[in-house]
Amino acid sequence: MPVGTKGTVKGLTPEDLKTLGAGVVLGNTYHLYLRPGADLIEEVGGLHAFTGWKGPMLTDSGGYQVFSLAKKRTISEKGVEFASVYDGSRHVFTPELATGAQEKIGADIAMVLDECPPAGMDYDYHAESLRRTARWAERCKEAHTRPDQALFGIVQGGLHPDLRRESLERTVEIGFDGYAVGGLSVGESRGEMLEVLGYTAPMLPADTPRYFMGIGDPVGILEVIRLGVDMFDCVLPTRIARHGAVLTADGRLNLRNARFRRDFGPLDPECPCETCAGYSRAYLAHLVREDELLGHRLITYHNVHFTLELCRRARKEILASRYGEWSRAWISRYTGE
Amino acid sequence: MPVGTKGTVKGLTPEDLKTLGAGVVLGNTYHLYLRPGADLIEEVGGLHAFTGWKGPMLTDSGGYQVFSLAKKRTISEKGVEFASVYDGSRHVFTPELATGAQEKIGADIAMVLDECPPAGMDYDYHAESLRRTARWAERCKEAHTRPDQALFGIVQGGLHPDLRRESLERTVEIGFDGYAVGGLSVGESRGEMLEVLGYTAPMLPADTPRYFMGIGDPVGILEVIRLGVDMFDCVLPTRIARHGAVLTADGRLNLRNARFRRDFGPLDPECPCETCAGYSRAYLAHLVREDELLGHRLITYHNVHFTLELCRRARKEILASRYGEWSRAWISRYTGE
Repeated sequence: MPVGTKGTVKGLTPEDLKTLGAGVVLGNTYHLYLRPGADLIEEVGGLHAFTGWKGPMLTDSGGYQVFSLAKKRTISEKGVEFASVYDGSRHVFTPELATGAQEKIGADIAMVLDECPPAGMDYDYHAESLRRTARWAERCKEAHTRPDQALFGIVQGGLHPDLRRESLERTVEIGFDGYAVGGLSVGESRGEMLEVLGYTAPMLPADTPRYFMGIGDPVGILEVIRLGVDMFDCVLPTRIARHGAVLTADGRLNLRNARFRRDFGPLDPECPCETCAGYSRAYLAHLVREDELLGHRLITYHNVHFTLELCRRARKEILASRYGEWSRAWISRYTGE
Repeated sequence: MPVGTKGTVKGLTPEDLKTLGAGVVLGNTYHLYLRPGADLIEEVGGLHAFTGWKGPMLTDSGGYQVFSLAKKRTISEKGVEFASVYDGSRHVFTPELATGAQEKIGADIAMVLDECPPAGMDYDYHAESLRRTARWAERCKEAHTRPDQALFGIVQGGLHPDLRRESLERTVEIGFDGYAVGGLSVGESRGEMLEVLGYTAPMLPADTPRYFMGIGDPVGILEVIRLGVDMFDCVLPTRIARHGAVLTADGRLNLRNARFRRDFGPLDPECPCETCAGYSRAYLAHLVREDELLGHRLITYHNVHFTLELCRRARKEILASRYGEWSRAWISRYTGE
């Protein structure tokens, strides 16, 4: 799911996303609530009407941003008070407010408000936090009124198997349309992340979507798919594009590298996207060095194409029962190992 | 002529420019010579091949940038020595080098190297300068070897009728494929500019293109067309777009203005461009406030469309012998006066 934090996948139009075959596009409740405001978006008919993207949309609850962006925050049973990253103004997100804001924003899938503690917090903190998150999840479900909007629960519990199990059981007991594994990609190692996902994912209901929050590098995507994940999002493909980093089957290329200055070949010779069909590495490297808007736009387009194409291929390989072998070979080529 | 200073009209693809119906696109010799370098562009087959724009292109000689960007510069009969705006490195532009660099860059129209003094310089300076510029123009013509590239001369002379006449006569005597009026839009008033153009333009040969360097606001465009100008360029439509300023028949809109936050109508109700067809003022105002790439891209697209459409309309009105009446009414509506 390409990420459109503030109501736009940076540099791309809805028409571009359609051409690219994007399935679900993300919006961010924290940012959209603060700017331009959930009421304003509701007034125009929701985020689809506001942005012009007619396909499926998901909004996260803002929980992750409250905990990752805010310098000062106070958590209580009621909710979390924080200072806006924009102007320092004080706001309180409660489960009811996060749910209501997402109903106004009107994405097809909403997320419960959760606390997302850093990986380094201790066992007792994670235990207390996941129980509060479960109580918040219950309040979100109670507050949720839109029958045309799915609501997903989020499993927390840090790096502790028994806490992950407890969080999962409490969340599944409440009952949601889908379940996310949260609280990973927050400072732990890749090995720890996969270990937690490895024992958490199999406990999730088999008949509802499984969403891993916050992974977007090609190897990570293939690894979480292998563990049974259906959905994932990350700003990585679009963010690194704006720094001149290009995803290819042979690994990441950094276009700022001097060797691309006179490389007149296509960006990725195996890629059929418009950027690779129309522009040379040398030209794109020039645009990157000069910080030109067109460079950001064209490389973002390629990286999103690359990532979506990887997922489409993964789906085919799963259906052909060849996923394990194919993904190992793919990762080996990508990493050069 | 939309301006693609560094080999890109900021935010737009060559495909966009084709859809918009751009005739000639500008490149800048000063910038392209320094980055990525004229040799590199020649190696890939010229600026058309490098950028993917297949339509006509014009490069200015770099003279204007040498005089407007460089902090330290030394002018001699030989040429002008200056410090690069990128890294302070010393360079010397001679008529021969500027011509050779433009042949390597390979636009369809090249410009002679000229000195472009600020409006405030005195009579004697302008007299000395225009004579040197005329000698440089002669050297440019001698150095020019590409039969597939037009070369235009440039008329200088500040705000002095007799110096303008002298510069024009010297330049026309050398003989070029077209003539530009330079040294305006450099600090003088709009009235002074039009006065100079008013007595300079009629002296230009009638059978070659007349190019006014550096005008791009709608009223300015209509005024120089009235005085007989055929070609003009300016970064204005694209630069103001990146600050959220939108060109409409009723004047400029500043999307940062609070009144657009909840304005769900199209950007310009009379405009058929993709931006106006697909996005509301409220959404674009949000993108502008958040400094989102998509906002820069979409508003640039509209402003270029608006400006090109204005020129297409002007051409029709000239052919129908209605230009005077039509342009007065247009300016009156635009300025609200």
